[in-house]
Amino acid sequence: MVIVMRDNATEQQIKNAEQRLEKCGFKIHRVDGVTRTILGAIGDKRGIDMREFESLEGVYEVLRITEPYKLAGRTFHPDNSVIPVNGSAIGGDEIIVMAGPCSIESEEQLYTIAREVKKAGAKVLRGGAFKPRSSPYSFQGLGEEGLVFLSQITQELQMGAVSEVMEIKQLDTITRYVDIVQVGARNMQNFALLRELGRIKKPVLLKRGLSATIEELLMAAEYIMSEGNYSVILCERGIRTFENYTRNTMDLSAIPVVQSLSHLPIIADPSHGTGRRDQVVPMARAAVAAGANGLIIEVHHDPDHALSDGFQSLYPSQFQRMMEEIKTIAWAIGKTI
Amino acid sequence: MVIVMRDNATEQQIKNAEQRLEKCGFKIHRVDGVTRTILGAIGDKRGIDMREFESLEGVYEVLRITEPYKLAGRTFHPDNSVIPVNGSAIGGDEIIVMAGPCSIESEEQLYTIAREVKKAGAKVLRGGAFKPRSSPYSFQGLGEEGLVFLSQITQELQMGAVSEVMEIKQLDTITRYVDIVQVGARNMQNFALLRELGRIKKPVLLKRGLSATIEELLMAAEYIMSEGNYSVILCERGIRTFENYTRNTMDLSAIPVVQSLSHLPIIADPSHGTGRRDQVVPMARAAVAAGANGLIIEVHHDPDHALSDGFQSLYPSQFQRMMEEIKTIAWAIGKTI
Amino acid sequence: MVIVMRDNATEQQIKNAEQRLEKCGFKIHRVDGVTRTILGAIGDKRGIDMREFESLEGVYEVLRITEPYKLAGRTFHPDNSVIPVNGSAIGGDEIIVMAGPCSIESEEQLYTIAREVKKAGAKVLRGGAFKPRSSPYSFQGLGEEGLVFLSQITQELQMGAVSEVMEIKQLDTITRYVDIVQVGARNMQNFALLRELGRIKKPVLLKRGLSATIEELLMAAEYIMSEGNYSVILCERGIRTFENYTRNTMDLSAIPVVQSLSHLPIIADPSHGTGRRDQVVPMARAAVAAGANGLIIEVHHDPDHALSDGFQSLYPSQFQRMMEEIKTIAWAIGKTI
Amino acid sequence: MVIVMRDNATEQQIKNAEQRLEKCGFKIHRVDGVTRTILGAIGDKRGIDMREFESLEGVYEVLRITEPYKLAGRTFHPDNSVIPVNGSAIGGDEIIVMAGPCSIESEEQLYTIAREVKKAGAKVLRGGAFKPRSSPYSFQGLGEEGLVFLSQITQELQMGAVSEVMEIKQLDTITRYVDIVQVGARNMQNFALLRELGRIKKPVLLKRGLSATIEELLMAAEYIMSEGNYSVILCERGIRTFENYTRNTMDLSAIPVVQSLSHLPIIADPSHGTGRRDQVVPMARAAVAAGANGLIIEVHHDPDHALSDGFQSLYPSQFQRMMEEIKTIAWAIGKTI
Repeated sequence: MVIVMRDNATEQQIKNAEQRLEKCGFKIHRVDGVTRTILGAIGDKRGIDMREFESLEGVYEVLRITEPYKLAGRTFHPDNSVIPVNGSAIGGDEIIVMAGPCSIESEEQLYTIAREVKKAGAKVLRGGAFKPRSSPYSFQGLGEEGLVFLSQITQELQMGAVSEVMEIKQLDTITRYVDIVQVGARNMQNFALLRELGRIKKPVLLKRGLSATIEELLMAAEYIMSEGNYSVILCERGIRTFENYTRNTMDLSAIPVVQSLSHLPIIADPSHGTGRRDQVVPMARAAVAAGANGLIIEVHHDPDHALSDGFQSLYPSQFQRMMEEIKTIAWAIGKTI
Repeated sequence: MVIVMRDNATEQQIKNAEQRLEKCGFKIHRVDGVTRTILGAIGDKRGIDMREFESLEGVYEVLRITEPYKLAGRTFHPDNSVIPVNGSAIGGDEIIVMAGPCSIESEEQLYTIAREVKKAGAKVLRGGAFKPRSSPYSFQGLGEEGLVFLSQITQELQMGAVSEVMEIKQLDTITRYVDIVQVGARNMQNFALLRELGRIKKPVLLKRGLSATIEELLMAAEYIMSEGNYSVILCERGIRTFENYTRNTMDLSAIPVVQSLSHLPIIADPSHGTGRRDQVVPMARAAVAAGANGLIIEVHHDPDHALSDGFQSLYPSQFQRMMEEIKTIAWAIGKTI
Repeated sequence: MVIVMRDNATEQQIKNAEQRLEKCGFKIHRVDGVTRTILGAIGDKRGIDMREFESLEGVYEVLRITEPYKLAGRTFHPDNSVIPVNGSAIGGDEIIVMAGPCSIESEEQLYTIAREVKKAGAKVLRGGAFKPRSSPYSFQGLGEEGLVFLSQITQELQMGAVSEVMEIKQLDTITRYVDIVQVGARNMQNFALLRELGRIKKPVLLKRGLSATIEELLMAAEYIMSEGNYSVILCERGIRTFENYTRNTMDLSAIPVVQSLSHLPIIADPSHGTGRRDQVVPMARAAVAAGANGLIIEVHHDPDHALSDGFQSLYPSQFQRMMEEIKTIAWAIGKTI
Repeated sequence: MVIVMRDNATEQQIKNAEQRLEKCGFKIHRVDGVTRTILGAIGDKRGIDMREFESLEGVYEVLRITEPYKLAGRTFHPDNSVIPVNGSAIGGDEIIVMAGPCSIESEEQLYTIAREVKKAGAKVLRGGAFKPRSSPYSFQGLGEEGLVFLSQITQELQMGAVSEVMEIKQLDTITRYVDIVQVGARNMQNFALLRELGRIKKPVLLKRGLSATIEELLMAAEYIMSEGNYSVILCERGIRTFENYTRNTMDLSAIPVVQSLSHLPIIADPSHGTGRRDQVVPMARAAVAAGANGLIIEVHHDPDHALSDGFQSLYPSQFQRMMEEIKTIAWAIGKTI
């Protein structure tokens, strides 16, 4: 941590700041600049909120030197984490594609779509059973019944299963049926939920919040990891910006940035990231080209009659063509699908 | 709802869209423009996600005509809601000030601060017992013990009490001790929690999410109200923008906007909205001048040693001066404090 | 400047970075932390783009210690600048209100409005002669003819005159007729124009760009000042955020922030800041309460037939009532109007 | 245009709005909904600012049906524009790569870099002669001398030349030396400059403003086209968001969106879009995968000593490897480089 004193800070204020830092366990190194004095505070104190020092008399600014996350960072874990999922692995040279409907609507619907995406190369089947809907008047999902369908179908087709948890009390049920537990963007900072996810034995797919910085995404992963579950897969799914032609703005540069800061794998969700069917394929290709470790894509055989998110679901034929295209792109950068 | 067809939409596509809408229960009114045909869809169907029509062949855009919220809006509830809190009322001509420490740290700390803010004119005492912290390594609050202090002190001083709930399982405990249950910005779209809050008998203080639109804030209120609890107090506490000199950007125009769209009261939180002590007073004054129904302010008698948020807490003397200033401002616009 | 080296930076990389900085004239102070080494670079080198050091091998991050502006900052100019305008002064204890139509449409229109705003207490008359319109098909202003009206009317009514310059070649003409030359938000980083404004002898009203940080606003002022014109009045007029119920989001906290960083006065433009007539008055009051040195407000006697911005122009009667309200608010914080 | 009346609009207010619209030349089609009346206004009136109707009594909202641009849109120009540049063509199946230094520093520097990028497959050489710098104290470019170098070297190497214009008075000089005139992001809404660019006979490379919506980008193109110059190449170069790990956030979804709305070609600038060398290659690949018609990339043989933007310039060897990768990606989606 570096404390920058104001131009006009008095010697007394500088001394006070030094003492305050020393009391917190830091070793201080003072540098007097042309107009300002800075204090280098040496010591690794992750529990301290450095903004606390910002309001000391005479302090201009506090600059952080080390990242606030530890388990999620590369410093003490330089090699990529590779997370096994149902015979495949996320985080290595293979790009894993997860696909399926937004909501599980019926056994037949899920089975129809599952066969299509499996045939095209998807390794994991997605399907929502508990749906977070911004209107209380919308379809809220089939609940456990949907999870039963998901589990049976993925076993039959030898696929992995991923589904979203919305609240702590659903966690026991969901972990019984799926291979990967998904945390939605709106829950990325639901810290109580994150702690519980840190105690399960299954990989967690953690979606970036709509207005979460990359650092906050990594801190959310840290929450899970600090409880013992190191199998966290991150997911870029679009951030909120002033541009509203697309529902969200996919921040694809988050992919190489996360990969430089963290050992955790990161996948992309172009369905929610764009919110428009005609944008999904170009952004899926772009995510792979940017280095994503995987994709999660909404597919529906009859999107016009889907109970949710039909407007952003690919037709199976579009999905199949996309898979062909991204295979070549993966090959161009030394990866496989 | 208005469906705008593409320039080159065929007659068949227009007919299909009409039929699809009619099947959903809408009455259709077709208008042929110079380059485009539009379909006016008449009917009040709040359960339908209008984006579903966006992916129909030949459709260019779907425009909503009615707000997605009903209970929170002014259409069927033109008069302001006035919510009684411990002898006062939020939403009328009186501006209610809530103040206190970020976290309850000890009985003595809370009592010291409570007396100061009470003396200066605060009607409600705030204090966190369960703290959502973005780092898993930070102080997480005293829990129920803190709520006991809060309850005893507010009874003695005849103040209202407000504290934040972080997860459903804390709800029973919290409602036993406080007059107003607060939902933090990160939980504004924790729909499971919102539903439960709709079933309690106490007012809910609902903070706007960091990247929530005004409409989403009102939809979150709708979630609570749709379960039967109509006592919702909204709170503007800053949104996330590109400007990062301040921690967040207070969107004070949200205050008159919310008041034009909704009958619910709205207060402002300049402590979190700015994140810097020297900004709190000017923005508190500005919020009152913009028409806020109340304020919630962090105050600490020894902010340099506060366990959280000290950098944005006012000293009691600053708080007292602020109260004097806002009394005059309130008077300028026909209100009282 | 502080250079933070990576965890795994080699001794050779640290040495190289030191040498590179020394070659640029900095004196280096090295601090070895627990996981990282930092280099304090002492020296005041405003011409150097510090991001150049970010790509040196082994460098993790470069942190700036001093602001990039000098003339606009408080360090070497601790007292407020007070800028005389036509008998009044901006930047002192008096709040200056500028008002008038968006565009000058005719002599009669301008005269009608001028008398109304003068009567209510405005000191400066605004009126656009050269209009920047985002559509090439919209009304573009009366040009010099409009400036003639503006000059005659303000002389008769003893008001100051402010009008916007859009391009360098208009500058000679405009300065002949007005007391304050306005730079629009879209031109805030038109550096060629800023340089020319630095050579005129009249105050410049510099509007914050839609996506400009506070620091960039102050750097734009620095551009003008570096050519010799120190009479710069800053103006907050809303920034672009995800919230689009209002046209822009007024960042009122920019007012106290600018006042802490700079000695230059700052006023607020709630007409453009909100883009909706019913928001203008609350935000004007809020800006004064936040400490603004002035306001600039669009007023039109017949806004339904205004050639531009009618939807955000106040009626004269609204303006008059607003003036009454802000007089009391000014008084509450020790100022006058 | 659709005018939505308020719930409680009176018959008189509806009649007034109808009359007002009819006076502007619209034909009105009234639809009475369950809670609201809407007025469909038929007629193509691009000069009218539809927000003018927003402040009529009883009006809730005004919704646009047709885009505000005409020449830039696909409605009257369904086929892609293909713009010839020095033997190549932008907008067809070939992806055009423009590369070179940020600033032209010397003949030798430019020549060294030009040969490298030419060898790797770049068709157009970029190089700044007039530099817009946010600090008045930074290197401002070589001016016309730099353009002479650019012109001579591109002739010798048979490449196209692109360089940025900052102000109108530079335009004559620049057009003498280059094949494509670039407009920087900060000038995207410098309407006076755009008009002049509409009168030149060379293609214009128009960069998206930092906070410009896609619609505003197309309106800026419309400005140029409305004066007669139809050769406009758009460029996505990152928008400003809350995420500040990267300098800007590249909005790659703008590429397919622009291609669906407009016939103009769009290229991507990952150097400015990310502002960090290690992000340039992944985002260049992603832009090609998303369907960009070209790239513009900063390359420097000695970036540590570049006079500007060294931190985001690729080494020639990185550029060469990138070219290999994007050739395969182009091939995957049916394009060539």
